[in-house]
Amino acid sequence: MSSYCVATYRCYDDKADFHKKAQSIAVGLTVGSWTELPAAKQKEMEKHLGQVLSVQVTEASDAPDGSGGRYADIRIAYPDINFSADVPALLVTVFGKLSMDGRIKLIDLQFSPSFLSGFGGPKFGVAGVRELLGVHDRPLLMSIFKSVVGHDLEELSHQFYGQAAGGVDLIKDDEILFENPLTPIEKRVEACMAAAGRAQAVTGQKLLYAVNVTGPASKLADQAKKAIAAGANAILFNVLAYGFDTLRELSADPDINVPIAAHPALAGALYPSPHYGISASVLLGKLMRLCGADLVLFPSPYGSVVMPKEENMAIRHALVTDKLDEDYVYRAPGSVDNLPSLLLRSSFPVPSAGIHPGLVPWIIRDFGTEVVVNAGGGIHGHPLGTAAGGQAFRQAIEAVMNGVALADYAESHPELDAAIERWGAKQ
Amino acid sequence: MSSYCVATYRCYDDKADFHKKAQSIAVGLTVGSWTELPAAKQKEMEKHLGQVLSVQVTEASDAPDGSGGRYADIRIAYPDINFSADVPALLVTVFGKLSMDGRIKLIDLQFSPSFLSGFGGPKFGVAGVRELLGVHDRPLLMSIFKSVVGHDLEELSHQFYGQAAGGVDLIKDDEILFENPLTPIEKRVEACMAAAGRAQAVTGQKLLYAVNVTGPASKLADQAKKAIAAGANAILFNVLAYGFDTLRELSADPDINVPIAAHPALAGALYPSPHYGISASVLLGKLMRLCGADLVLFPSPYGSVVMPKEENMAIRHALVTDKLDEDYVYRAPGSVDNLPSLLLRSSFPVPSAGIHPGLVPWIIRDFGTEVVVNAGGGIHGHPLGTAAGGQAFRQAIEAVMNGVALADYAESHPELDAAIERWGAKQ
Repeated sequence: MSSYCVATYRCYDDKADFHKKAQSIAVGLTVGSWTELPAAKQKEMEKHLGQVLSVQVTEASDAPDGSGGRYADIRIAYPDINFSADVPALLVTVFGKLSMDGRIKLIDLQFSPSFLSGFGGPKFGVAGVRELLGVHDRPLLMSIFKSVVGHDLEELSHQFYGQAAGGVDLIKDDEILFENPLTPIEKRVEACMAAAGRAQAVTGQKLLYAVNVTGPASKLADQAKKAIAAGANAILFNVLAYGFDTLRELSADPDINVPIAAHPALAGALYPSPHYGISASVLLGKLMRLCGADLVLFPSPYGSVVMPKEENMAIRHALVTDKLDEDYVYRAPGSVDNLPSLLLRSSFPVPSAGIHPGLVPWIIRDFGTEVVVNAGGGIHGHPLGTAAGGQAFRQAIEAVMNGVALADYAESHPELDAAIERWGAKQ
Repeated sequence: MSSYCVATYRCYDDKADFHKKAQSIAVGLTVGSWTELPAAKQKEMEKHLGQVLSVQVTEASDAPDGSGGRYADIRIAYPDINFSADVPALLVTVFGKLSMDGRIKLIDLQFSPSFLSGFGGPKFGVAGVRELLGVHDRPLLMSIFKSVVGHDLEELSHQFYGQAAGGVDLIKDDEILFENPLTPIEKRVEACMAAAGRAQAVTGQKLLYAVNVTGPASKLADQAKKAIAAGANAILFNVLAYGFDTLRELSADPDINVPIAAHPALAGALYPSPHYGISASVLLGKLMRLCGADLVLFPSPYGSVVMPKEENMAIRHALVTDKLDEDYVYRAPGSVDNLPSLLLRSSFPVPSAGIHPGLVPWIIRDFGTEVVVNAGGGIHGHPLGTAAGGQAFRQAIEAVMNGVALADYAESHPELDAAIERWGAKQ
């Protein structure tokens, strides 16, 4: 019995015979033609033939408003034997040509045990990142520079120190900070890690700095290693600008022994349309985890740049679920595999944009404690300064972890109080 | 005076103040904040600040039906000094975060002379591909295997010979043919190039075979070189599965001295929505040419997998125009650059899918003669066999180049006659 990877599509059409369409996809994207093959040839080719697993039609009258009317969710299993065990080959097989064939969106992927076994997943994952930081009992706190373009080393390290002094666990570069003469990567790492050291002397707390690895595709690994040699203890990577296989290679490289934070830059070109593209949970969930992102940023449902909450929850689930057999794995009926139980470390969800301390209870309610609270303006814009901004977040986290209402905790914590005064606390 | 690259967005919103939105993009994606900066700091940062070039609002009452209502086309100039001169950095700068910020589509890009001068463009281009083939006076003819998955070397080389014998100029792998035990890349190249040699002995005609280069991102160049060492004289590449910079690196590699055909696999996840993504003319036009694709495939407006004709024409224009100063270059007012006149070789447009000989007059009417006529079913499905399929296309091309109506030419050309009988000729 062959093993298969499974793609689920949502396909819109007012009139199509979706069962016929599903069949034509299963044949067209695998063996090319079927019914006209002689029986002997069919027997030979059967192991290469795509299989329609299910077709669920929703008629226009039952479709949600604004959805674009009648649609079907179509699940098709593609034999592993047809493609090499890498994400580019899988995506090109299941959605290469098909992406251009009318209103159709790739909404889920499942992988055969054999395909999945070729992927290491996150090198650190949630537990590994916690281990590096020595923080096990609360959500982590990440902050973003206020602005980076046009600033020199002194200004960046000043910003860095302010954030670090407030007790954040991770600081990330802006995704738009590229190799530049003012703050070249090695100098930047040195300056920022020196600031981290000064802050640690005060806070007693470790910190990861995710430096943005950019430039020519074939030099990214070298850039990462240069940064690590200069002291970087994490990297930030614009995955979608380079493709998932490049993330996988960076993650699999034994010399890149630091966590990788995946930035979602450009993802909005792919996930938001109901009719086209690739769903957020595949793009920023399953594929990021498979290819080794230790942390994944995505637009929160709270702020100005928003993603609907159910999509956030689907990403979260894809990043942290330990029920791989349920969500990631497709075992063909009757297939017997002797592969050991599959394991992928989980990736930290990092809902981002528009986050202020008053939202912390909501973040923890929605995401649980395995989450990174990530803030920019909500730290730098604090009325008492950047360090107080970080402290206010840490206080909000403490309050929630201790089951105390923010308003009550704020009475004895002036930084949190000032933050709530400034931004409010969502009720 | 700084130099700038320019992004044009189409942005949908029922109520937004688009001028304000444009300003917030120009500031937010560059210096981060502006009005609150002290005057001295503003002076220092001005060279990093994005500039709103124009905002054209179309009110809902004037918007085309189904467009999604009120929108604005917003042009913003981004200082080159903010990003490194590569496509990932440019895309992340102009559309990284912004892609996730509501209904907004990147519809055009223009480049500073300095940014553009870092790109070699196609190594061969239209003229170079013609030179390799020795064909200067007509559209080229490309064909696709009938089916590749599950076939062995003998079957593939048999299919190859049939296509070559009909007089096609180029044969391309299926984009879903990956490294596999039946037809590994070196063996496949050897078998197919041997078939090409046998066909050339009959037809007297040269032929390019574009073999699909796949696998781990960092090994693609090695794969290409292995294929070339085995005799490959062209390569096919799934650009969007790996990113534009990888295409640029393959094209810039002096040891990869064969034309590159760019396949549009996955492009449909990005271009078709009016509200999200990146327009086809940027994705499959400007960026492909900039990064060195000698030929670019895209869905034709004629067949089953269709792209609207105006988008086809916009891609064509981006691939072949020699008016780079008009369409590709943005020169900031008052900027003085001493760069030599810019030149990018043109890329061959390859409108694909659903092509049969009866469409050749329409292809040439729409695309002119600098086009590759690309067929699969329209060659393999010919009633008199695959070789006759190729001949019918060549006859259709001859007819059009000689100003003879297909129906008249078919009277003395039985292959063309049979093709028209089978598929008709679009009136």
